[in-house]
Amino acid sequence: MTLSVIEHVLMRLKDIGIDDVFGVPGDYSFPVNDAIANSADIRWIGCTNELNAAYAADGYARVKGVGAVCTTYGVGELSAINGIAGCYAEHLPVFHLVGMPNTATLKGRKLVHHSLGNGEFDLFRRMSEPVVVAHAVLTPENVAQETERLIHAALYHRRPVYMGFPADLALKPVLGTAQPIPMPPSDAAALATVTDAIVAALDNAKSAVIVAGMLVGRAGHADALARLVEGSGLPFATVFSGKSVLDERHPNYIGMYDGALLEPEVRAQVEGADLVIDIGAPMTDFDSGVFTAKLDPDRTIIVGHHHVRIGSKTHANVELADLLDALSARLAHRDWPRRTPGSLGPVKGAGSDPIDAAALYPRWAAFLAPGDIVIAETGTASMGLAFAWLPEGAYFQNQTLWGSIGWATPAAVGAAVAAPDRRTVLVTGEGSHQLTVQEIGQFGRLGLKPVIFVLNNDGYLIERLLCKDPEIAYNDLAPWNYTELPHALGCEDWLALRVTTCAEFDAAMDKARTATSGVYIEVVTDRYASSELALKLHDAMQAIYKA
Amino acid sequence: MTLSVIEHVLMRLKDIGIDDVFGVPGDYSFPVNDAIANSADIRWIGCTNELNAAYAADGYARVKGVGAVCTTYGVGELSAINGIAGCYAEHLPVFHLVGMPNTATLKGRKLVHHSLGNGEFDLFRRMSEPVVVAHAVLTPENVAQETERLIHAALYHRRPVYMGFPADLALKPVLGTAQPIPMPPSDAAALATVTDAIVAALDNAKSAVIVAGMLVGRAGHADALARLVEGSGLPFATVFSGKSVLDERHPNYIGMYDGALLEPEVRAQVEGADLVIDIGAPMTDFDSGVFTAKLDPDRTIIVGHHHVRIGSKTHANVELADLLDALSARLAHRDWPRRTPGSLGPVKGAGSDPIDAAALYPRWAAFLAPGDIVIAETGTASMGLAFAWLPEGAYFQNQTLWGSIGWATPAAVGAAVAAPDRRTVLVTGEGSHQLTVQEIGQFGRLGLKPVIFVLNNDGYLIERLLCKDPEIAYNDLAPWNYTELPHALGCEDWLALRVTTCAEFDAAMDKARTATSGVYIEVVTDRYASSELALKLHDAMQAIYKA
Repeated sequence: MTLSVIEHVLMRLKDIGIDDVFGVPGDYSFPVNDAIANSADIRWIGCTNELNAAYAADGYARVKGVGAVCTTYGVGELSAINGIAGCYAEHLPVFHLVGMPNTATLKGRKLVHHSLGNGEFDLFRRMSEPVVVAHAVLTPENVAQETERLIHAALYHRRPVYMGFPADLALKPVLGTAQPIPMPPSDAAALATVTDAIVAALDNAKSAVIVAGMLVGRAGHADALARLVEGSGLPFATVFSGKSVLDERHPNYIGMYDGALLEPEVRAQVEGADLVIDIGAPMTDFDSGVFTAKLDPDRTIIVGHHHVRIGSKTHANVELADLLDALSARLAHRDWPRRTPGSLGPVKGAGSDPIDAAALYPRWAAFLAPGDIVIAETGTASMGLAFAWLPEGAYFQNQTLWGSIGWATPAAVGAAVAAPDRRTVLVTGEGSHQLTVQEIGQFGRLGLKPVIFVLNNDGYLIERLLCKDPEIAYNDLAPWNYTELPHALGCEDWLALRVTTCAEFDAAMDKARTATSGVYIEVVTDRYASSELALKLHDAMQAIYKA
Repeated sequence: MTLSVIEHVLMRLKDIGIDDVFGVPGDYSFPVNDAIANSADIRWIGCTNELNAAYAADGYARVKGVGAVCTTYGVGELSAINGIAGCYAEHLPVFHLVGMPNTATLKGRKLVHHSLGNGEFDLFRRMSEPVVVAHAVLTPENVAQETERLIHAALYHRRPVYMGFPADLALKPVLGTAQPIPMPPSDAAALATVTDAIVAALDNAKSAVIVAGMLVGRAGHADALARLVEGSGLPFATVFSGKSVLDERHPNYIGMYDGALLEPEVRAQVEGADLVIDIGAPMTDFDSGVFTAKLDPDRTIIVGHHHVRIGSKTHANVELADLLDALSARLAHRDWPRRTPGSLGPVKGAGSDPIDAAALYPRWAAFLAPGDIVIAETGTASMGLAFAWLPEGAYFQNQTLWGSIGWATPAAVGAAVAAPDRRTVLVTGEGSHQLTVQEIGQFGRLGLKPVIFVLNNDGYLIERLLCKDPEIAYNDLAPWNYTELPHALGCEDWLALRVTTCAEFDAAMDKARTATSGVYIEVVTDRYASSELALKLHDAMQAIYKA
């Protein structure tokens, strides 16, 4: 039987690993919504709003490698667009399926709802262009080819794509066929040149270190990098956005590299090495200790997803996976000098002590268990927790470059949907939590059982630390009764606790460890209980703020 | 003392009536946030997220005529963009102030947070272009002139504008000065021609009716129209988006015109009239009874904000206010035939009767009091309530063209901030409410005391009515315990009630009438308790859905 346009697209999305589509339905997108809801292979996950749905797809793609979000025309797609932009910045191949009015409405320039009332119907797709790597409006004639083009673009660049479905055309049978577009192989000569150069550089180096970033995981090559590290014995650090891209309990892990801001011993080993191999770690502000990272270009080789830069020369068409495998094959094991990662230090405070930073972050670190998925919101909380030495197989995710507060709560839903057998731990400040809080209800509805920590420090702490007058009115928040939220949002049997002392905090975490329901813990701290990195950020950021 | 760039802009926004700016702070926008928070004249109203802030500014502008929202670069502005698009579609002059990175970052193409990591910094302003009528990045050199240009564009077109503030430039002193740009006067000859033509057409007509739409109120000319109606004796109807643009208890009001869908007597009077004067009512789908309105072009004069169309000829440069005044001066009073508006009928049901549509909508209508501001969410609820005959001075607002669900809850916050001395009544379905529910906390924080009705019919009812399979999974929602929400969101002393029978509903409304706090009433109905218009919509909409 010939599939319809939308059925064909869903079949291909299923092929590449998409089992769930997050979204909010709408009348123009009924044909798309219907096809998903009626699919035997793909599940519709209704979210409370479109931005949350996009964030959920983002969190899902961080676990599964790909994700999808479905919205209606105009109102829906524009609500989601900030989440799509985040997928672009953070290299996540998320498919944005948009239901559009039918052809007669589009061509007739009708004055219909969800339009601007000016007869223009191509505006919103155009608005999406800067934040997707490819886009198409699907028709029976083009869907076979265009779907392959978009899948290829999304997977090659690890970026989101936009797929528009005019309502009538979505239901028409596909015309024609197309084959998947294979990923381009490396240029053999370039790969050989680069491999030789890296092997030679390592032969001449007394010390070397790999700095691994976000792109390794996003490209799906963490396993290949792990093989290289194990085979070669090379030590590795990660940057903020690449945290946990390889298991932090791997014996070759030396810690988080954050320029001059934190972890001076990691900095010394990285910046003092005869050779640094930066793999998938662009030096953005928060991945470079606010540009305090000083990697000598003459001693640094930069390995991207599809190219390698050695000295002043960029070698194109060198695929990351091919290079990792080639190096694994060539490099004999050496006992490279390396250090053991530091920890956040011992758990401090007890009894009725208030929960200060020294009490908070080591406790969170100690709470984490092997295999946890940790979704850490941008802000003081992630800045503290990122420097914890994670247990085996724990997976830490933060929106380090895009940094859209509110991301974490729905992203945790997406991650939990993607990996229902793992424990999802959400760590968020209360200010960020307020943006997207309603998505908590999805955990309950879907029977997922996360552990949620809401750090309540009475306002936007990271902003208090960065702005001119910490006590200025805009850093204040509406005072909520956070622990009432899970039940109000339909999570009927959850454990919801508010803790203000170390003893309460310890007791709550004990309960959380054995809970058979979702857990929501509001951790109340002093207004200025700040992680070390957050405290250092004020001075460091002035360079970015001032002209 | 010379003002800074941002201080100058705020001064001018204050001049045109903006007393409050809604927003979410962010590091790139600290200079803008600081200036607002430190302003003696303008209040910072922190919202839980940027889309909600934009919706709040929309609701504020519906009451005050102008509004403003402030967001940070990238993440913030894109989160708000759907709300800005709504302001565009619905003709609301809302100023979107966006804090940007400093000049050195922009020119240096730095890899900083809230960017896509590609060194491009003009993308997000460009993404906003289709949904604003003008845009500028403000500098000391251009701010005087550009502010006047943007204010003029916003007020002339009643559309939103975009103002970007690089962080360093926002704090620099203004260079130069500029004068406000006056609104263009009508072309005297065109105005005379049109006035003569309308007077003549009325002289020749035995029956005539004005159909008033959204633009009358948006343009700020409701008073001028009221004078014309009173002086001439002309009867008037309104379309959905223009509901309550003139007082519905005015003796010349005949009811809501919705084509063939509802109110057949209004339809008969409008479509049977010798002359229809359509004032500011473009015939969009939901303003035309899904294109069932049949206005004979030969008997219809279309009056826009800046032009008039008579027969096949469009007369440019005829300003609405000038024309209304000219007609008032020329037209003698006549006793035009007219009908009395219908009502939703008597309140039905009592005691333990479930709350069906016949019980629900007349009760809501009876609850409304003179002067209420009613914010009605898109969906079955507004479709029922829109046909209530409002009490004196009550003001009804719905996002009829853009129709972005979730709009109403934050828009009600904005309306209440704009008019704290009036009672704000929010009527929303629970599905729509879920999108933006956290903004309820703002009422409590600001000491505002709305009455909120949440219609809980266990899913997206309007979608059940419009889609192919009403029971399909995507129409279901996470089941919340709604009445727990106000307290959870910090509205400590609110009256929160859940009603499932007519008696409970009546008792709850009695309490609401005399409450001294905010009121939140969850009205539980059968899954398919539908207003008449909503029921009729399924068939009517097929023309829009099918090819």
